[in-house]
Amino acid sequence: MGTGRFIAFEGIEGSGKSTQIRLLQEWLEARGSDVLFVREPGGTPVGERIRDILLDPSLSEMSDICEMMLFAASRAQLIHQKVRPALDAGKIVLCDRFVYSSLAYQAYARGLGRERVWTTNAPAVDSVLPDRVVLLDLSPTDSMARARARGSLDRIEAESLEFHEAVRGGFLREAERDPARFLVVPAQGEPESIHEAIIEGLSELFEEPGPGSAAAEGQSS
Amino acid sequence: MGTGRFIAFEGIEGSGKSTQIRLLQEWLEARGSDVLFVREPGGTPVGERIRDILLDPSLSEMSDICEMMLFAASRAQLIHQKVRPALDAGKIVLCDRFVYSSLAYQAYARGLGRERVWTTNAPAVDSVLPDRVVLLDLSPTDSMARARARGSLDRIEAESLEFHEAVRGGFLREAERDPARFLVVPAQGEPESIHEAIIEGLSELFEEPGPGSAAAEGQSS
Repeated sequence: MGTGRFIAFEGIEGSGKSTQIRLLQEWLEARGSDVLFVREPGGTPVGERIRDILLDPSLSEMSDICEMMLFAASRAQLIHQKVRPALDAGKIVLCDRFVYSSLAYQAYARGLGRERVWTTNAPAVDSVLPDRVVLLDLSPTDSMARARARGSLDRIEAESLEFHEAVRGGFLREAERDPARFLVVPAQGEPESIHEAIIEGLSELFEEPGPGSAAAEGQSS
Repeated sequence: MGTGRFIAFEGIEGSGKSTQIRLLQEWLEARGSDVLFVREPGGTPVGERIRDILLDPSLSEMSDICEMMLFAASRAQLIHQKVRPALDAGKIVLCDRFVYSSLAYQAYARGLGRERVWTTNAPAVDSVLPDRVVLLDLSPTDSMARARARGSLDRIEAESLEFHEAVRGGFLREAERDPARFLVVPAQGEPESIHEAIIEGLSELFEEPGPGSAAAEGQSS
C-alpha cells in the first residue's frame, strides 16, 4: 500500500456517517490534506450501477447470497479503480461503509456467517484494509427515526427494528475483535461534539512524522 | 435436489448454444416434458439488471474481480429463484451458460485461477450442479465470424481472438476433469446433425425409469 491513509466510517442507517465524513473532510482539507471521499456501495461508474440494483425496493426477492456478492462486486471495483490509486498517490481516503458493513449486515443480521462473508470479500478487499474504522454507534430506535425523517425508505432501510439491532450488534462484535483499528464513537449527541471526538480519536493518524518517530512508534505499546 | 434434470450448455460466443437449446427444448416438449429455459448472466429480474452491467461496452474499466463477482451474484439469484424450485418440481432445466463459463473466462482466460473462481462461486452454486454439461466446441476463428455476422459486439465478445482461444481451452480442461458430466460436441456442422448428437449423448438422462432401473444403474459402469 502507498503512503496515504484509509479511514472507513461504519454504522447503522441514520447514525450520521454522511455528516461526520463531511465535517472530517472539511477539517482535513483546511489543514491542506488531499482527501478522496468515496461511498459503498457505489463510488465508481460500475459500482453506482450495482448500487441502483441493491437499493431498488422493487427487487425484494433478492437472495441473501446474491446481495452479499453484489456488495463485494462494488467493493472490488472501488478498491481497484479509486482507493488503491489514491492511497498510492498519498491521499487520505474517507469511505462511507466498507467490508465491516458486509459482516454486520450479511454475516450477523442475515445469518450468512462471518467465515463465508469474509472469504467471499477477500478477493474484493485485496488486502487493502482501513488504517482506522470510525464506528458511529447508535440505537436503531433513534437511527430509524432519523432515516424516516429523511423520506421514503430504501430496500435495506425498510428492514425490521430487530434486523437493525442485529446489525448494530455485528458492528460492535467486529470492534471488539479488532480494537486497535476501530474507534467506537457514541452517535446520539450534537454533530459538532461527535466530530471533536473523532478528531481526538484519530489524532495519531494525522500527526506529521518527526525524525525518529517510526522508531519511537515501534517501541511503544 | 428434486426429481428434475439440470442440463447446462457451454461454449464460446457463436458456438450455437441458443440454437441447440431451442432445438432440444422443442424435442423435449414434443415428448411431453415440462422444460424451463434460463440464461446466464440473467434469467431473473435481479439477474437481468446485472447482465446489463456486465455486457455494457461503456464499462470497459471493470476489474476482473468485480466481473467475477457480478457473474456469481447473477448465478446465486438464478439458482435460488428459478433453478432449484424448478428441479424440486420435477422440471427439466436448460441453462445457457453456468459456472463452467466463469471457470473458462475468469479462471483460465483472465488468469484469476481456478481455486479462487470456484471458491467465490461455491455459495452461489449452492451444490446445485448440472446432471450434464453440453460443451459445444468450436474454434474461435469460426465462432467470431458468427458473432460478428450477428451485429455489434458486446463487452466480452470484443475481446481478442487469443482471449477466446484461452476460453475454449478452459472449457476443454473442465471437460477433461469431469468426463462423466461433460458431453463435448463438435459445433461446426449443420444445426440438425449437432442436435442429433446431443440427443444421442443425453439419451440416458431421458429414459423413463423402469422397474428395478435404479438398482441396474447402481451396478453399471
